[in-house]
Amino acid sequence: MPFVATILTLYPEMFPGPLGISLAGRGLREGLWSMEAVQIRDFATDRHRSVDDTPAGGGAGMVMRADVIAAALDSVVPGQGPARPILAMTPRGKPLTQDRVRALADGPGAVILCGRFEGIDERLFEARDIEQVSIGDYILSGGEMAALTLLDACIRLIPGVMGAPSSGMDESFETGLLEYPQYTRPVEWEGRTIPEVLRSGDHAKIEAWRRARAESDTRLRRPDLWERHEGARVQPPSGARRRKQDDVK
Amino acid sequence: MPFVATILTLYPEMFPGPLGISLAGRGLREGLWSMEAVQIRDFATDRHRSVDDTPAGGGAGMVMRADVIAAALDSVVPGQGPARPILAMTPRGKPLTQDRVRALADGPGAVILCGRFEGIDERLFEARDIEQVSIGDYILSGGEMAALTLLDACIRLIPGVMGAPSSGMDESFETGLLEYPQYTRPVEWEGRTIPEVLRSGDHAKIEAWRRARAESDTRLRRPDLWERHEGARVQPPSGARRRKQDDVK
Repeated sequence: MPFVATILTLYPEMFPGPLGISLAGRGLREGLWSMEAVQIRDFATDRHRSVDDTPAGGGAGMVMRADVIAAALDSVVPGQGPARPILAMTPRGKPLTQDRVRALADGPGAVILCGRFEGIDERLFEARDIEQVSIGDYILSGGEMAALTLLDACIRLIPGVMGAPSSGMDESFETGLLEYPQYTRPVEWEGRTIPEVLRSGDHAKIEAWRRARAESDTRLRRPDLWERHEGARVQPPSGARRRKQDDVK
Repeated sequence: MPFVATILTLYPEMFPGPLGISLAGRGLREGLWSMEAVQIRDFATDRHRSVDDTPAGGGAGMVMRADVIAAALDSVVPGQGPARPILAMTPRGKPLTQDRVRALADGPGAVILCGRFEGIDERLFEARDIEQVSIGDYILSGGEMAALTLLDACIRLIPGVMGAPSSGMDESFETGLLEYPQYTRPVEWEGRTIPEVLRSGDHAKIEAWRRARAESDTRLRRPDLWERHEGARVQPPSGARRRKQDDVK
């Protein structure tokens, strides 16, 4: 059963867009995943086909109507096949992680709701089981680019999509660390040479060097990730959480 | 002088892609911003037009060559007009923030390098002044989707691109908080009504309610943002950093 993405959007012509190119595009043509984009406006009920209205309480911009979005959503959910999670791309959502990406890619797909303007009427999130997801701490013109990004992250994990098996667990975030730096030919370039150890053929030494660089780069560039990684590492398998950390103090 | 984006990529056909649609697309056609996508492969020097090679020290996948990428980069930088920052989209980069997006949008544009495969030879980053940027803690099939996301965030801030002036400083992250929830007509939907206060017409009360919801939602959903926000708030304008926090302990 391939991964199926259903995207609810005011701009269905944005999909598959970049996902129709390269390996994701080949996977789409080969049926390794599939998608359909649903035009939210088709579920408007007035003669102007309105999908939005002014914010209650005042303020700039427009807010997407709960009734119209719910009608669009209810038209595709539950649908056929196993239940898929419903995601809404919004800066108010939970930050996307590689763990969540992997879980989604392992599942039957996703229904993805793309907000526009000042957001979606909050009652929709109270009335339906929707996971609010943020791809980062910045504001986009709408949820479409966030949906494309989320799908790109998922699709590359679908078996058969990547040409060769990825290095997988070596990659950034899969181990809770940034990936170590990479080098390739030429051995010398602009007076800079590939680090000696990587040319040594000594696999244990190479492994140790990579591990050390992954750790030092993470500590330097992403103290937040490093802290989480260290917190998880010293945490005992069960019982008193962070006890070992406390002991050290 | 409009915002100019130059994208170095193996998939120039991905651009402008979704950015050619909606308000960003209209801004592009109206000359409010412009872009060019440069094919990295055109700078390969061997007869196979190789852009990558196997990782020094072994491992899966391929690494992009420093010499080829540098040749592509040097062909567009410094270029004409004011100097633009060179960004490389990579999970090893600094997490993108709305502050950085705003600074980029206020500037002359950006040269954006899209990595693929296992990344780019690290010597490139030592030899050129390149800002490594990550859009989030997940892995994409390449830098292209990250570049599109970054550009989308910048372009919507370019004067004239958005139809109406955005609510700006009310939005998530602009104040260091998530945005408050939004509501719109109908007043009652599926038995749920818009919160009374938002229908009161009392602007001071509405403002206070929104502020309180922005704070409580941030605290609940994004303790990391909340901590940073509180840290900034209690920090005295100069001198002893976090002193007030320490006092509380």
